[in-house]
Parts: sequence; C-alpha cells; structure tokens
Amino acid sequence: MNSEKHSKAIDLSHHFSEVAKTRKPSPLKELSKYFGRKDLISLGGGLPHPAYFPLSGLSVDALVPDSFALAPAEHSSSLSWLWKLLGANTSPKEKTASVYIPKYSTDTNDINLAAALQYGAAVGQPQLQNFLRQFVSQVYQPAFEDFTTLIHTGNTDGWCRAFGSFCNPGEGVLMEEWNYPSAMAAMLPSNIRPVTVAMDGQGMRSDALEKVLSEWDEEVRQMPRPHVLYIVPVGQNPCGTTMKSARKEQIYDVCVKYDVIIVEDDPYFFMQLGDYEMKSVRSPFTSHSSGRDQAARFVSSLEPSFLRYDYQGRVVRLDTFSKTIAPGSRLGFFTCNPIFAERFERQGETSTQSPCGFGQSIVTKILTNWKYDGYIRWLQGLRTEYAQRRDFFIDCLAEEFDLQAAPAPAGIWEGCLTYQAFSNRRISNTTEKSSPLFSFVPPNAGMFVWLKLNLERHPSFTSEAEGTLEFKLWTLLAEDGVIFAPGWFFPTDDVATSDVGAGHFRISYSNAEYANLKKAVTVFGRVIREFFNEQN
Amino acid sequence: MNSEKHSKAIDLSHHFSEVAKTRKPSPLKELSKYFGRKDLISLGGGLPHPAYFPLSGLSVDALVPDSFALAPAEHSSSLSWLWKLLGANTSPKEKTASVYIPKYSTDTNDINLAAALQYGAAVGQPQLQNFLRQFVSQVYQPAFEDFTTLIHTGNTDGWCRAFGSFCNPGEGVLMEEWNYPSAMAAMLPSNIRPVTVAMDGQGMRSDALEKVLSEWDEEVRQMPRPHVLYIVPVGQNPCGTTMKSARKEQIYDVCVKYDVIIVEDDPYFFMQLGDYEMKSVRSPFTSHSSGRDQAARFVSSLEPSFLRYDYQGRVVRLDTFSKTIAPGSRLGFFTCNPIFAERFERQGETSTQSPCGFGQSIVTKILTNWKYDGYIRWLQGLRTEYAQRRDFFIDCLAEEFDLQAAPAPAGIWEGCLTYQAFSNRRISNTTEKSSPLFSFVPPNAGMFVWLKLNLERHPSFTSEAEGTLEFKLWTLLAEDGVIFAPGWFFPTDDVATSDVGAGHFRISYSNAEYANLKKAVTVFGRVIREFFNEQN
Repeated sequence: MNSEKHSKAIDLSHHFSEVAKTRKPSPLKELSKYFGRKDLISLGGGLPHPAYFPLSGLSVDALVPDSFALAPAEHSSSLSWLWKLLGANTSPKEKTASVYIPKYSTDTNDINLAAALQYGAAVGQPQLQNFLRQFVSQVYQPAFEDFTTLIHTGNTDGWCRAFGSFCNPGEGVLMEEWNYPSAMAAMLPSNIRPVTVAMDGQGMRSDALEKVLSEWDEEVRQMPRPHVLYIVPVGQNPCGTTMKSARKEQIYDVCVKYDVIIVEDDPYFFMQLGDYEMKSVRSPFTSHSSGRDQAARFVSSLEPSFLRYDYQGRVVRLDTFSKTIAPGSRLGFFTCNPIFAERFERQGETSTQSPCGFGQSIVTKILTNWKYDGYIRWLQGLRTEYAQRRDFFIDCLAEEFDLQAAPAPAGIWEGCLTYQAFSNRRISNTTEKSSPLFSFVPPNAGMFVWLKLNLERHPSFTSEAEGTLEFKLWTLLAEDGVIFAPGWFFPTDDVATSDVGAGHFRISYSNAEYANLKKAVTVFGRVIREFFNEQN
Repeated sequence: MNSEKHSKAIDLSHHFSEVAKTRKPSPLKELSKYFGRKDLISLGGGLPHPAYFPLSGLSVDALVPDSFALAPAEHSSSLSWLWKLLGANTSPKEKTASVYIPKYSTDTNDINLAAALQYGAAVGQPQLQNFLRQFVSQVYQPAFEDFTTLIHTGNTDGWCRAFGSFCNPGEGVLMEEWNYPSAMAAMLPSNIRPVTVAMDGQGMRSDALEKVLSEWDEEVRQMPRPHVLYIVPVGQNPCGTTMKSARKEQIYDVCVKYDVIIVEDDPYFFMQLGDYEMKSVRSPFTSHSSGRDQAARFVSSLEPSFLRYDYQGRVVRLDTFSKTIAPGSRLGFFTCNPIFAERFERQGETSTQSPCGFGQSIVTKILTNWKYDGYIRWLQGLRTEYAQRRDFFIDCLAEEFDLQAAPAPAGIWEGCLTYQAFSNRRISNTTEKSSPLFSFVPPNAGMFVWLKLNLERHPSFTSEAEGTLEFKLWTLLAEDGVIFAPGWFFPTDDVATSDVGAGHFRISYSNAEYANLKKAVTVFGRVIREFFNEQN
C-alpha cells in the first residue's frame, strides 16, 4: 500500500462508456470566458427574474447540534426507557435556533434565495461546495490532492450517473452476494449485469475478488472482465457487515492490479455503532472530552473510507444527507477525481440538473451555521441514538428468546460471533436440546439486523421449500401486523449466492417507536414459535 | 376531431421501449396490500426516525397572490419606468404572508416535514397530488377522464423519462427545425435522433408532419418511422412562436393516423402575452372583472393544451414550476394516461426518486394556501409582468432602430408580421434605401426574441461565411459586455433546417433589470452598425 499523499489522480478516462464520451458541455458554458466580467449584461439564458419567486425569505427552526446526548441516559429497565420515549412523535421537546435565508443578500457569501432558486450550475451553491471540500479533507482524507466534490440528488442518482459513465450495455459490475435491491434495479434495464463476489463477516472478500478477476473467462462469462466494483462497506445492506481498514486496503490493491473503479456507496458511514454487548455486561458509555478534541476522536474512531487509500483516484465515493439530515433533502455528493467529476456533471445537466434549491439552501444554511464541529457533534449524537436503538432492539430479542453466542460457520458471517435464538418457552425438564429458531450477528453499523431463519426445523422443510417457507412466515407476520423485509428481496443473483433460500429477514430498528420495536418482537416470538410448532 | 369527453385512454403500451418494459415495481410495493392497516408496525424499510431531522419547522414568507398588477401602471416615458424599477434587486417592497410548515401535524391533511422529508413514494405528497388534479381538470381539461398526474424534478427529467420509456436506441423523435438544445443533448447519448419537421409562424406545420410520416422510407432514413413527437407549443424556444388551437387539432389528428405519441413540453403556457403593439398605438390594458370570473376568463383566453384534444390519451404533457414559482424548485409534473404514468413512476424510483421534500412541502404549502384562484391570480400577474418586459424590450429596439413592419416571407415566420430594423442614423438626404440590419417577429409568448441577422449586408458576406459572421458579431457584443444566445446553439440538425446559417440571436427579456435591457440594446445598436459599416 502506497501511503504517501499524491498530488494528482492518474488518468483513468479509458473507463468511460461510449455514452459518457458523447456528452458535451452546454455551449453557453464553453463561452463562459466572457462571463467573468462584473459589468456583463447577459440576455443569453432563459432565466426568470428573482422578483417573481413568490418568497421573500425562509426561516428555519433548526435543531441545535448537541440535541442528542453523546452517551445514553442511565436506565434501569427497558420499560422505563419505553415510556420516556413513547411520546416522541407527538410532543417533541426540540431545542432549536432559528436561521433566516433571505431572498436577497448584500453579502454574496451568504446563502440567498435569489441565487439558490435560480437555474443553477449542476455543481451547486458555492457555500455548500466550500463546506463539503473542508468536510471531505478532514473526515475522509483522500490520498490524492486534486479530489473534487460534486453534489447529486441522492446516492441512487449518484450510482446511476456512475454506472452510466463507466458501463456499456452488456458489461458487468462486481457486487457482493447480497445487495441493496435499488442498486441493481437501476442498472438492469441498461443491460448491466451483476457479477457476484463472496462475502464474509466484513463484507466482500478480497481473495474472492482476486479469484473472480484472475480467473475471468470472457467466453464462459459472456462479458468482458468487469472494471467497476460497487460496494456498501459500512452497515452493508442487508447483511449489516462493516469492512475494516486492512480489508479495504487489500481490495483497493486488487482493484489497482486489475484496473477496476471502486464505487463506494456509504450512507451509513457515521452510523458505526460499535459492538453490541449483552445488557447484563454492557459497559457504561463514557464521554469526557469535548469540542474539537471530541470531534477529532470521533472521526478517527471510524473505519476509514476507501478514499484514504486512493492514491490513484479510482474511487468514486457516494455520500448522502438522507441518513444524517433527512431523506427528503434529496441531496448528496460525489468525491472523486476531477476527470470523473466532469462527466458526472455533464450527465446531471441533461437529467436532474442541479438538486433542489430549497433543499440546497436549507441544508447549506444549517451546516454553515453549525460549522464543521457542530455537524460532527450532530453526527455523534445520531450515532449514539442509533446505537441505543440497535441495543434496545437486540435487548428485546434477548428478552423474547433464549440467545446463545456461538462462533459463526464459514459463509457471510465468517469471523463473527453469532447469536442463536432458541425458544425460551422450552419445558425445563426436556432433556433434548432443540435447534435454534434463527441466528444473527448483531450489526456494528447501519440500520439493519439480518436474521437467518433455521427453516430446517420446520416439519414440511425440503430444500425446495425454503423460499416458500420464508414467504409463509413473512405472511403470517404481516397478517399479525408486523412487516419485515423478506430475504428474497436481496440476493444479487440466484445462482452463486451462498445462503440463498436459507430464509432471511432484514429488520430495521431505525424508524419505529421503541414501544413498537418491543411489540414487533413479541409478535415475532409468538408467530415463529407457532410456525415451528414450539410451545407458546 | 372527436370533441366528446372519453372515459378512458386507449391502450398505447405497445409504444414502450425495451428498457421501459424491464422496470419492475419495488417488491415492498407489491406487498403493500398489508400496508393499509392502521396498526401495522413496519420494520421493513430503511427509514430514519423523523426526530433525527434537524428541523422543527419552516416558516415561509410567501408573496401574496396579487403581488403584481393585472394591468401595467401608466407611464409617460420608458425612463421613468426605468428608475422606478431600477432598485428592484436591492430593496424589494414585497407584500408577504407567513405560512408555517411544522415537523409534526395532528391533522394528516396538513403538509408536515416528518412526512415530506421522509423517503417518499415517487408520486409525491398527497396534498400536492390533489391540488394538481384539480388544476389540470380546470385549466387543461383533458378529453379523457382517467388522466393521471405524476410529479418529476423538472421538464428535463420529465423528457428523459419520456424518451427513455418510449424510444429504443436508433429510433427517431419528430421535432421542429429549431429546438431547445437540452432536449436534444439529453437524448443523443442514447442514440435517439431528431427527425426535423418544417415550421411556420405557429411552430410545427401539420402538413409537413403528415408529409414526413406518409413518405417515410425506413431504408433511406435508416430508422423505423418515428412514433414520438416532441414539441414546445407556446413561446417556442428559440423562435418564440405559439401554436393556435386549430393547428394543434390538425397535428393531433395526424398523430392519431400514424400512431404517434405527443410529448408537449410547455413551460411558457401561462406566459401567453398577447400581441405586441407599437408604443404609439398601444391600447391601455384594462381589467374590470375580479375573482373567480377573472380567473376563468384568463384561463379561457389561453391557447389550449394538446390535452384538450387528447381523446385517446396519447399526449404526455410536461409542466414545470420553474417559470411560475422558481427554477430551483426542481419540481414539475406529467399529465398523461395511467399506463404511461406507471412506467414514468418506475423510472423515477430508480433514478431521482421523489423530488426534494423541502421543495415539495414549500411549493405545496404556498399553493394550498393561495388556493386555485390565488394561484391563477399569481399567474396572471406574472403574465402581465413578462408582457411589460417584452413590450419594454421591443420599445427599446424601436428607439434604437428604425423599425418597419412587413409581411413575413415563407419559412419559419410565415403568416406573421415581421419588423425589419434599419439603422436610424442614416443621413436624411441619402436617397438610396439601405437593407435592414435584422428582422424579427415580436413574440406573443415566452421569454425570447429571435432575431434574424441580415448578414448579406456585410462586406465580407459569402454563404460559407454566414456562421463565421454570426460568431464574429456575437464576439464583438460579448467584448462590449452584452451576451445574447447565438443562433448556432439551436438548429435541430444541420441538414434540413431552413434559415440555418442566416445568422440569429436569441435574446431573453425575462431576467435582466430594465436599465440593463435598455443598455444592452444601445450597445447592440452601436456594435451592429459598426459591424455593417453604418454610421454611428
């Protein structure tokens, strides 16, 4: 691994797809050398006058950056916690500070609606660009200096622009065996196909990646060797795995060897939650330092982005504000080399154009008002909140089931400690130990618990019936008012994937009220015991 | 023409492209029959909790609907008008009413940020859907009853979803000879090619369309007969032409005969400005009625949408809030048959997803607060403002040049009265009448004046030098601080287009301050007279 800081990305423009090569900048931009003049009168563009925007200003009641504690409050039982949090949806006690976005501003450094709501360059508001550049430098620390940030309308848009810029129809993208379904749904209509790589408890395996690439046979595979890799390295969707730095370096080196572009889709980066510990042994969360020191320690505690190892500029990082501000902001950003960024910008110009000016101006105003340290503090608070939600949900499972730790077998959890869930209604004098109902690895990042159902226990189990049984159990749960995401949403393809058909549920602890998380687990317990003919 | 109201669109699903056919709904949506239950606990989606959206509310200082007069104020000279309007950018005197968008609302009919900022269905906020349905019924009056509205992130996104849903690579789209460049820039990378149709003073000619379609030869053209037509029928970009209802009916009937889908891109619908009259003869603008009557009279005064004649459901209408609210809203909507809408929705789900929730909630709150009549009143005010800007700009031309009316020759202005602009610095005792410097038709809609330069007058004119001379004059103007959009941006292709190479400028009167419009015309006068060796 090459750890020194490089001044420039290498030229990787040979990766561009035929379509990407045809996109031209708008001619008015070509002529923009004249536009630097202060006294220029442009009657060139079809712009409405800002006096006709029907707003004189926007006032945003923004939450303060330290709205959420860095450490969970002491709680004696999950029930007291429950009641405390129960009313959150109806009577929020939010500490806010109001910020105002005027239509006109005499200080051109201030965000103003006259500019933000006008037709804008696809690169977005300059104040946001400035904030993002500082943010990326300090948090992700790319290994090359001429990195570029470019806003997009969320990571799905970002991913569409990435595969659209790199892949011709008929080509393949390297992906983990289990995957975020929208990433595939977006590329399949363009006849861009997934090529699966085996996973373990950290996500994609570097040895499996090397094997796929080194043994590639164009004729057998009926496509050229893939030159694009898509990965969700933190809080993998759906498996919840997180890749550590050594694995990222190994994967990066394989990608250098085989000249592969890495698209790092990383919405859960700041939701690195730490390991789950059983409630009985959980150590109290302590946080003594504060301010800049606190921010730096938090950032350095996170598994780094692929950008940290990217001395060549072959990583396209996708960040989104969907999890850290709100999904409806429809705002995110690329970090990548400037040659890639230029193509992504061209593609934006003829599709989504610039992200919404309302969203851009509000998010920018909040961020610039909070400043870098404030935003990091906000993210730390969010991290603590989601860690509590994760802990609470698994505590509920521990109350509803008899959880027993066991080392994971080979496969997607290799290297992790799994929990096997047994019915806790077993009659005490039964001597025969039954097999578990399901097993899981507590996620150390993201929003999801990925359950593997032990369908072999079911009386009507045959290997053909696996998918059917998963759907049957899913339906029983839905009829009792609980929706999990069924496993059959998530395999990348149905040939090579290990664990396919074993029966899985992806359960999100990120959104429901605590009382409902508890209730859902209770319903799940009753339904799965019935399903497996256990006592209730 | 079939004028009765039809209950259902016909099935036109055979128009779908191969790509469009492959797009599937998300499985969670498929399972949504369970989601109607009020007591359902969903742990299925990866949604953040709304408590973590860092806003408790948004206060919008919205302009009142009657912010702009229905009739221009009396003014004795353009100069007094100038000074009155000069300060608009720095000290706006805007009449506003504040509306508040809370994070949480007990009334589910109210727009709230907890819903608007969450991951949303691509169909958008229900309150906006309701408003749009009423709006389309009353304003556009589609000739079939099961029309559907679906929001998108602006007409460029809408057009991308339309050609992506209908056109396979290698197919062609029927377009006018002069065109909005981004419409072509968006489709060319997918190898979808323009097929030009001749224009006159109303835009696309129906006889020319019939001729192209009836004489289509797949072998000569090397593509199948086009089944999609793209048109900007009001305030055509760049020519400023507007199509009247009889022509729309004729084109619709040709499209029925040859089974062609019409994509009506209509950003300037409410900027139907009426005819320009020379200042000396201009009749005072009067407006006596008010309220609902006024709204109805305004709407019925506008040339109708293609939807009015669309008894089969073959029109895809693209509306945008870019010109009526603000470009940065990145919000617009389709009106079309429900089968098309379903495909556009699927395409949205895997690209832009739902338009920005900040923008959606703010625009929806303004519209629902104003109500239908208020929004129509706002649009009328805008219409008057843009009519004044158009009149002022042409008045400036009339002051700077000697304008003489003349009937248009055959070609893109056929059927219109043109103005020929002569230098007004001609020495009075010169007996020889010189030829005009340029000519134009005052637009009766939109934002643009389309000038045809009389390059033959230039000493170094040859037919080869036309493009060069246009660019030379453009550069002289830019060096003197005035930017027009040069004609070479706009031809649909460079083979069949009449008037190509004649030299054109597209001039926008929509955005600059009045003083700058005046100044730009003065600079233009001096530069073009020098260019043509006229006296200054």
